[in-house]
Amino acid sequence: MSKISPDALLDAMKACAARTDAAIAAQLAPGRRPPRLVEAMQRAIFAGGKRMRPFLVQESARLFGIEGDGPLQVACALEAIHCYSLVHDDLPAMDDDDLRRGQPTLHKAYDEATAILAGDGLLTLAFGILTGPALKLPLSRKVKLVAALAGAAGIDGMVGGQMLDLTAEGRFDPKGRRPRPSVAGIRRIQQLKTGALIEFAVNSGAILAPRTSGDEKKALRLYGRNLGLAFQIRDDILDETGDAEAMGKALRKDAEAGKATFVGLLGLAGAEAELTRVSEEAKAALTQAFGPRAGMLNALIDFNAARET
Amino acid sequence: MSKISPDALLDAMKACAARTDAAIAAQLAPGRRPPRLVEAMQRAIFAGGKRMRPFLVQESARLFGIEGDGPLQVACALEAIHCYSLVHDDLPAMDDDDLRRGQPTLHKAYDEATAILAGDGLLTLAFGILTGPALKLPLSRKVKLVAALAGAAGIDGMVGGQMLDLTAEGRFDPKGRRPRPSVAGIRRIQQLKTGALIEFAVNSGAILAPRTSGDEKKALRLYGRNLGLAFQIRDDILDETGDAEAMGKALRKDAEAGKATFVGLLGLAGAEAELTRVSEEAKAALTQAFGPRAGMLNALIDFNAARET
Repeated sequence: MSKISPDALLDAMKACAARTDAAIAAQLAPGRRPPRLVEAMQRAIFAGGKRMRPFLVQESARLFGIEGDGPLQVACALEAIHCYSLVHDDLPAMDDDDLRRGQPTLHKAYDEATAILAGDGLLTLAFGILTGPALKLPLSRKVKLVAALAGAAGIDGMVGGQMLDLTAEGRFDPKGRRPRPSVAGIRRIQQLKTGALIEFAVNSGAILAPRTSGDEKKALRLYGRNLGLAFQIRDDILDETGDAEAMGKALRKDAEAGKATFVGLLGLAGAEAELTRVSEEAKAALTQAFGPRAGMLNALIDFNAARET
Repeated sequence: MSKISPDALLDAMKACAARTDAAIAAQLAPGRRPPRLVEAMQRAIFAGGKRMRPFLVQESARLFGIEGDGPLQVACALEAIHCYSLVHDDLPAMDDDDLRRGQPTLHKAYDEATAILAGDGLLTLAFGILTGPALKLPLSRKVKLVAALAGAAGIDGMVGGQMLDLTAEGRFDPKGRRPRPSVAGIRRIQQLKTGALIEFAVNSGAILAPRTSGDEKKALRLYGRNLGLAFQIRDDILDETGDAEAMGKALRKDAEAGKATFVGLLGLAGAEAELTRVSEEAKAALTQAFGPRAGMLNALIDFNAARET
């Protein structure tokens, strides 16, 4: 496989997103469920994201020759977790956002109680999907997937990162004092808050595969770690330089809330240099272990570094 | 085993609660975790409940001769889910409670953001416990436990029931109109909202056991279903006749919020008659399948019918 063109990457991402959406829709069938709750959960999850995490699951599985329902169901579970986290993060008590992707956030479209419950429902659904009948997989690997996803999403991962992020704002200090920001500190926050789920996505291919070498696992870890950082640095750059209308949300909120960002700490040029550095590190690790098969995931690194939304 | 005395039951419940607390404490070790989040999760879970659900797990496993770490870890996971649901239900956007068991609710002791995250963290932790190293169990049964707990806790169980409960208050109707309450309607709400987790607890013994008969499973289902109802009816009676100080929370909030309760629909005498009926049905089902081994779980039925908190 030679270098993947940006168009080929976008086509592959769109096809993956369509498959993922159909599989999630099947998991969220109304049936006898409370209609308002089902609708809110559907709205939360069909809010038009790029489905980058499902794509990472699909492509990391493909590195090991695995396709089909296995990666698809893992992708659904992961996306349920990702979307629950957006709903809860947007709540007034958290980041208090009114808009996401140009649409009212869930608690604005419905109400706070519905948003809290829809988030709880999506979080729980993820673990039902990983142990449900649609995922045909040896039981040992289902258990590993649940353990890895719970680890990435919980107090040792995303939830812990969100708490560190709010703490770094000075939110819990009686005088609003903020810990002195450092690049190491912000790396740790972002590695937990957004990196842990991205790393889970990238590592899930190795969990789905019957056999993986230590070198392959190490390469996936390095790729996942650096992609997570690259993703967050690009987000911080877009928060500074992006177009609010194209992004469908208010910008510069992080800086105004006093959150430490890569741009705030390194400056715009410094953040861009760091983005290049971690992007190259991710691609080098993957190419070394997987050779030409790394093409699609490496194209995603370039896509991230150039994305405008 | 002859009839269990109330004192023997209380002693057994206290011993089970102590074992459960120690096992949960081990799962919530601070380590490098964000201190505020760990403390909030600990406070949420060590708020002094009766640990009825852990006791149900322990005793249903004992029906099949199973003791030790298996039921203990399942009990921890279940209690994490139960306690997360209390934290989220108490939030201002939900039931808006300031006190629980005589103590400030979590968002009062900390803040709303911390309470939301602590709840999310406990919910996620439950699935980590069921797939973690402390639970030594064949993998097929771990998968069944995760599937059953996700089913009981999510949109088809507890979260769905909470949504139905808020809907029955008229909360989501623009004019605050409430659906006409019926005994069938309130049974469905309570079966999902509080019954599903109780039923999971009672059924978990059969999941942990290597072999169970259809009659045994059916008896556990009947017992669990009726205990769940009995528990809710007793709660409704206490909300009407109980002592706010002893219970450590505001009473008659449900009736004031316009929630349909068994007492509201059946009157106090009618609710008491229904409590007796479902209690007897639970005991009869269990005794028929398990004979004298049913003694402890049947004593719990009598305990519930007489409890004052």
